[in-house]
Amino acid sequence: MKKTQRVGAIVKILSDSPNRTFSLNYFCDKLGAAKSSISEDIKTAKSIFAEMELGIVETSPGAGGGVTFVPHISDAAIRELQDELCTKLSDPSRLVGGGFLYTSDVMFDATLIKRVATVFARKFRDENADFVTTIETKGIPVAVMTAYLLNIPLVVIRRESKISEGSTISINYFSGSYDRIQKMSISKRALVPGSKALIIDDFMRGGGSIKGITEILSEFDVTVAGTGVVLAGVEPKKKKISDFIPLLYIDTIDTDEKKVKVFPNSQIF
Amino acid sequence: MKKTQRVGAIVKILSDSPNRTFSLNYFCDKLGAAKSSISEDIKTAKSIFAEMELGIVETSPGAGGGVTFVPHISDAAIRELQDELCTKLSDPSRLVGGGFLYTSDVMFDATLIKRVATVFARKFRDENADFVTTIETKGIPVAVMTAYLLNIPLVVIRRESKISEGSTISINYFSGSYDRIQKMSISKRALVPGSKALIIDDFMRGGGSIKGITEILSEFDVTVAGTGVVLAGVEPKKKKISDFIPLLYIDTIDTDEKKVKVFPNSQIF
Repeated sequence: MKKTQRVGAIVKILSDSPNRTFSLNYFCDKLGAAKSSISEDIKTAKSIFAEMELGIVETSPGAGGGVTFVPHISDAAIRELQDELCTKLSDPSRLVGGGFLYTSDVMFDATLIKRVATVFARKFRDENADFVTTIETKGIPVAVMTAYLLNIPLVVIRRESKISEGSTISINYFSGSYDRIQKMSISKRALVPGSKALIIDDFMRGGGSIKGITEILSEFDVTVAGTGVVLAGVEPKKKKISDFIPLLYIDTIDTDEKKVKVFPNSQIF
Repeated sequence: MKKTQRVGAIVKILSDSPNRTFSLNYFCDKLGAAKSSISEDIKTAKSIFAEMELGIVETSPGAGGGVTFVPHISDAAIRELQDELCTKLSDPSRLVGGGFLYTSDVMFDATLIKRVATVFARKFRDENADFVTTIETKGIPVAVMTAYLLNIPLVVIRRESKISEGSTISINYFSGSYDRIQKMSISKRALVPGSKALIIDDFMRGGGSIKGITEILSEFDVTVAGTGVVLAGVEPKKKKISDFIPLLYIDTIDTDEKKVKVFPNSQIF
């Protein structure tokens, strides 16, 4: 293999396995080249990622060391993504009954939501969470993409305990959005006591669900390393949790005027 | 930019956007190089993907033409994936009450499930589905990854109709696994009448859910282009649908002997 081909192959392999550390030997074996060449190739790959602001290639020396691709999204690309989402979500044809907004097409758009997940992966990587968690259903795509980018497991909290989950722990919590008591449930075998969770969800209004998640996690001695939501309501001002990072905010919908105002969180960087 | 850097950049861009067609001009602008150089670079990128069996780079000539990365997984890699999953899933400690198997950790493992999705993307790409669909919850990760790889939308069928979904169409169907009538519901604005769906799910026993999905889709004049499931029960032999492709099969669990037998579908290639 020539240098160009080796570098291309390294870019592809790293890019497909975010936050996984490869030894130099892995590439030597895979590409049939000497350590000195592979070392140079990795430097080139590193410069490509850096120049295009598509990620950071970290190298650590020594026997336990290796090469890790850390996904990145530039400030400019975050702003572009926020603007794109604001335009999409502010469309008044999204209004459904009761002042609710139809967002499923956006939350289930895999390509778009992977870009959102890259923002969360950038924001929360240094918190060293052991796993990502979300409550079914609409937050699952962004949570699974964040878990993929951070290379950690995903635990999905269910609304009803299912027989295939084995024994579960359940709690009841008050959801302001639906103005009623709701239930959530986690399989006992899903969590490692003492570990750290990153909560990712599609939408937060008063914070009742997220507070519920924090409570059910504490049943397992699991602490929260961070909370990211795609969209947070401006109202109510007083939330049940204080520590969360939304990509976007939404003003309370004026159902008479049929106006939706979604705007970027300018503090996300 | 030197050739090596350009090729690396092209590999990264293509790899990040499966099944999206880029014009030659896109790369010329992005990388500041002439068409003739970019043309050569793409040939090199193509050879890298081909040699590593990591995907196919398709080029089509003319004004409407361009370059498309089609994700691929080799036969050998599929066999390896099947073996890995069989070992994981045959572990008797996964048995929970009622002859059910705990599979959530596998179905929510983003990296593993992306490899499974690559098998479905390879298998179903030529069916030209307009969107992927699944019924909540455990099939969502594999469905979202398949949608990502095929670059088509995902529509998630809900069990309960939610206010944020707007007006919905619902059906009742009989689920053999749970031995009861269940409900499923789709937002009317989620589907384009006359389009083609690819059904992706985590598990199928008698095929009741999948038949239900087919029925609810037909309410929208949507036809089924294909059905892929991660795991299908050997029993009952007579399924409610005939046209489906499992990655793995599972024998009926002998709850007395506590034995789980999961084996590969050797016809998947």
